[in-house]
Amino acid sequence: MRTFDCGETILHTLQPTPFSMVAVRALMSYARLTDRVKTREDLKNASAILSWDDAVMMPPGGSDARAESLATLASLSHEFLAAPETGELIEAAREESLDPWDSANLQHISRSHRRAKAVPSDLVSAISRARSKCEQLWRDARGRHDWKSVRPLLETLFDLTRKKADCLAESAGVEPYDALIDTYESGVTQALIDPLFAKLKGALPSMIDDALARQRRVIPLGERFDESKQLVLAREIMRGLGFDFDRGRLDLSHHPFCGGLPDDTRITTRFGEGDFLQMLFATIHETGHALYQQGLPKAWRSQPVGAPCGQMLHESQSLFMEMQVARSRPFLEYARPVMLESFGIEESDPAWSLDNLLAALTWVEKGRIRVEADEMTYPLHVVLRYEIERELMNERMRISDVPDAWNESMDRYLGLDTRGDFKDGCMQDVHWYSGVFGYFPCYTLGALAAAQFMRAMRNDLSDIAENVGTGNFSYITDWLRTNIHSWGCVEPGLEVLERVTGDPLDETAFLVHLQSRYLAGR
Amino acid sequence: MRTFDCGETILHTLQPTPFSMVAVRALMSYARLTDRVKTREDLKNASAILSWDDAVMMPPGGSDARAESLATLASLSHEFLAAPETGELIEAAREESLDPWDSANLQHISRSHRRAKAVPSDLVSAISRARSKCEQLWRDARGRHDWKSVRPLLETLFDLTRKKADCLAESAGVEPYDALIDTYESGVTQALIDPLFAKLKGALPSMIDDALARQRRVIPLGERFDESKQLVLAREIMRGLGFDFDRGRLDLSHHPFCGGLPDDTRITTRFGEGDFLQMLFATIHETGHALYQQGLPKAWRSQPVGAPCGQMLHESQSLFMEMQVARSRPFLEYARPVMLESFGIEESDPAWSLDNLLAALTWVEKGRIRVEADEMTYPLHVVLRYEIERELMNERMRISDVPDAWNESMDRYLGLDTRGDFKDGCMQDVHWYSGVFGYFPCYTLGALAAAQFMRAMRNDLSDIAENVGTGNFSYITDWLRTNIHSWGCVEPGLEVLERVTGDPLDETAFLVHLQSRYLAGR
Repeated sequence: MRTFDCGETILHTLQPTPFSMVAVRALMSYARLTDRVKTREDLKNASAILSWDDAVMMPPGGSDARAESLATLASLSHEFLAAPETGELIEAAREESLDPWDSANLQHISRSHRRAKAVPSDLVSAISRARSKCEQLWRDARGRHDWKSVRPLLETLFDLTRKKADCLAESAGVEPYDALIDTYESGVTQALIDPLFAKLKGALPSMIDDALARQRRVIPLGERFDESKQLVLAREIMRGLGFDFDRGRLDLSHHPFCGGLPDDTRITTRFGEGDFLQMLFATIHETGHALYQQGLPKAWRSQPVGAPCGQMLHESQSLFMEMQVARSRPFLEYARPVMLESFGIEESDPAWSLDNLLAALTWVEKGRIRVEADEMTYPLHVVLRYEIERELMNERMRISDVPDAWNESMDRYLGLDTRGDFKDGCMQDVHWYSGVFGYFPCYTLGALAAAQFMRAMRNDLSDIAENVGTGNFSYITDWLRTNIHSWGCVEPGLEVLERVTGDPLDETAFLVHLQSRYLAGR
Repeated sequence: MRTFDCGETILHTLQPTPFSMVAVRALMSYARLTDRVKTREDLKNASAILSWDDAVMMPPGGSDARAESLATLASLSHEFLAAPETGELIEAAREESLDPWDSANLQHISRSHRRAKAVPSDLVSAISRARSKCEQLWRDARGRHDWKSVRPLLETLFDLTRKKADCLAESAGVEPYDALIDTYESGVTQALIDPLFAKLKGALPSMIDDALARQRRVIPLGERFDESKQLVLAREIMRGLGFDFDRGRLDLSHHPFCGGLPDDTRITTRFGEGDFLQMLFATIHETGHALYQQGLPKAWRSQPVGAPCGQMLHESQSLFMEMQVARSRPFLEYARPVMLESFGIEESDPAWSLDNLLAALTWVEKGRIRVEADEMTYPLHVVLRYEIERELMNERMRISDVPDAWNESMDRYLGLDTRGDFKDGCMQDVHWYSGVFGYFPCYTLGALAAAQFMRAMRNDLSDIAENVGTGNFSYITDWLRTNIHSWGCVEPGLEVLERVTGDPLDETAFLVHLQSRYLAGR
């Protein structure tokens, strides 16, 4: 046991070593830097659980104090990163010859330091506060279509975020919107997104019409399902997919999400207004995120290099499980008997035939709601949001213009008249109301990447359908863990994709997948 | 909206005022000090929710990361308080003429600063870590009577705590054990406790024997009760007592407790092995704590003076509700019909007669378990623990001696042979295993204070029984709120007691209460 002297802080002393003093100093600097960064990870972990609690457990009265706590944690984290001492340690650590993981870790720390230094601490806590308040109000206002009352808070939050984007852009020599996108997936830019999205905008509309024309009627599953049975079933399927309940939970929230940390992964789901498949597949989506999080490298828990890559790669993992794996015939061969037993349904019920369930799970529809959209129309929902964000960030549009822009795009891309509908219009997603701009493109880039990963997996593994059909999911999750999850962010997401698939990010695999699932097969 | 400049931190500037520069500087110092202290309250609030989550929600895999987060929050809080800048602001703020609340606030800050400065930051985080680990192990080991495996961690934790006690004692010029007790209720010392406990040790044994001899048989409530119905009932009674569910929750945990913060009060209960009355009355006990917490002065949420007094006063509030109010005939007149309806029990069932329920709720028994003890034997459980702590702290006993000392005292005070029983012996309470030494006396001092408060309330309010009997609890909680809760800790707990009751802390009201409930009436 260590001993402590009252009133004095113990300094960590270094044993004499045979290294040269320069090497010792550098070694010490990197070690001290990782200590410092660990403190910041501790604060981040605290915030992750508090944010989960905020969405899942907190009584309404707790919101003011929670907003203050989260703002303080954000601002302390930020000060830690931005501090000159951090910069000095980074400089000194650069003198040491580090192995590839330490070296990548140092690069992440250095990038965070640069970004933190670029943004004033007061702005960070102002954003954290504005975000808590705006999101809180949005939760109430959404149901009432009450755009008017949430708009001023959204404007404040947007202006603060725009200011942050300016600061980041200035420090990195890039455009403000690119600086925000870079927050969510390093290396992704408008220049990368624009041509990809242009191809999707070109290809999808006619494919969607074609799919709609071919699609057969689906027999509705009809009846309401007992909510506690739904949760038992969802947990059973999560467990089947490999979710480790000793290191995570499933709960209910307003909006499904995956939060927490690698050894304490908190995912949530919700009961939809439709049938239970919606809830189940939202859970499977979040389970895909969770498997990534739980599969991160154990040795690097307290360092940035042990974190997931950006949100494009994260979404590729959730969509891989939801879209590539679970909305398929083999998955239903496994899941259908489990579902029948859970709800005590007759084997012969036609609504529960394999064909009908598959038709329900691959139903295409031009709808208003992104999170309920099928994978064919989904990219158009994302394009719409991306274009609005881009116009806002490039100061060609103001927040007050958002509803009109929204309605025009919904009409143009999906042929829907959404005027007057704020709840399922521009107020449907939490992102903007919690200050998240630049994230949306990651959903669709993730869908493209998921299709590329599946193509690569098919090259590596020959019996995917057989193993999924019998519920042996470790056959595929081992591949994901080995090739993706256990790599943390030692490479940027775009490079992970290239290493694993041999190709840069593109739309081909995704379009081929849509073609084969929604057109060729029907 | 404020504007921010990239890369610069905005300073709060003070408008020119007609005050002299000294006054301005002092005013600015106190204001800056309260800002600084608010940050620390934000961290404390974060820790409160994380600790609740730890006990109620966290999967086992989360414990290491949680221990690190809590240790980091503890050490940052501590550094904030101990920082020389805090000391300078305190000195400068002393120059200003502050109103009584600000003045008391400054005193609290100053006391915390002195105490923080006395303890090295490394020791604070080492204790936080040792405590998380020891408590985690204890949760498993207790059920197996596994003293051997938990002992080394307890020794480490005790040694660290003893070291902290030395540091605090040195800075305040008091004995180490007194310095710890002072953590939990300012102003309470061994010199205050010893004579009070001596009187209880003198009076109680014969009173207990007398009560045992008079006590009639109780018809057991028998059957097991549906757990979800028990929770519904508990929540209904909490609501009746005035618990505000917009600002709090009830959940289940290993050990009932009241955590969280004033506007986000988290209480827990558990299903006992016995009947549901145990669970209900544990809930009522925690509701007493919660009413205190929810009743604290709104204007002082972010400052120390808005916090509860120490644990003696806190326990007086829980015991007031549980013992003085709820284990009584009038309370049962209100609660019995609610219980009958909840469980669908016949009005004529003899086990559920008012007399039998009252007998069950005032049953006296020499038992092994403190939290299940009746109010007559309870003080002896506390005396036993107090004496062991005192001997440990005064270095007349070692941790390895605890089991023997425990067994001897259980035999001496309650005539029980507890040898070999660790689970319901010296491993029954979480306190020591989470580094809490010096807290136990507060339970019994709180019981004495609760009896004194009831005596004072009877002088002020004439219709207590009638109002309790009809479930009009605001009649009494308004009195508690006005006289105690809304005062925060503008006075120390011992002074609150004197202001409200006119008397210093003593044992008379408590012994009279026991006499009238357990002896005179039967």
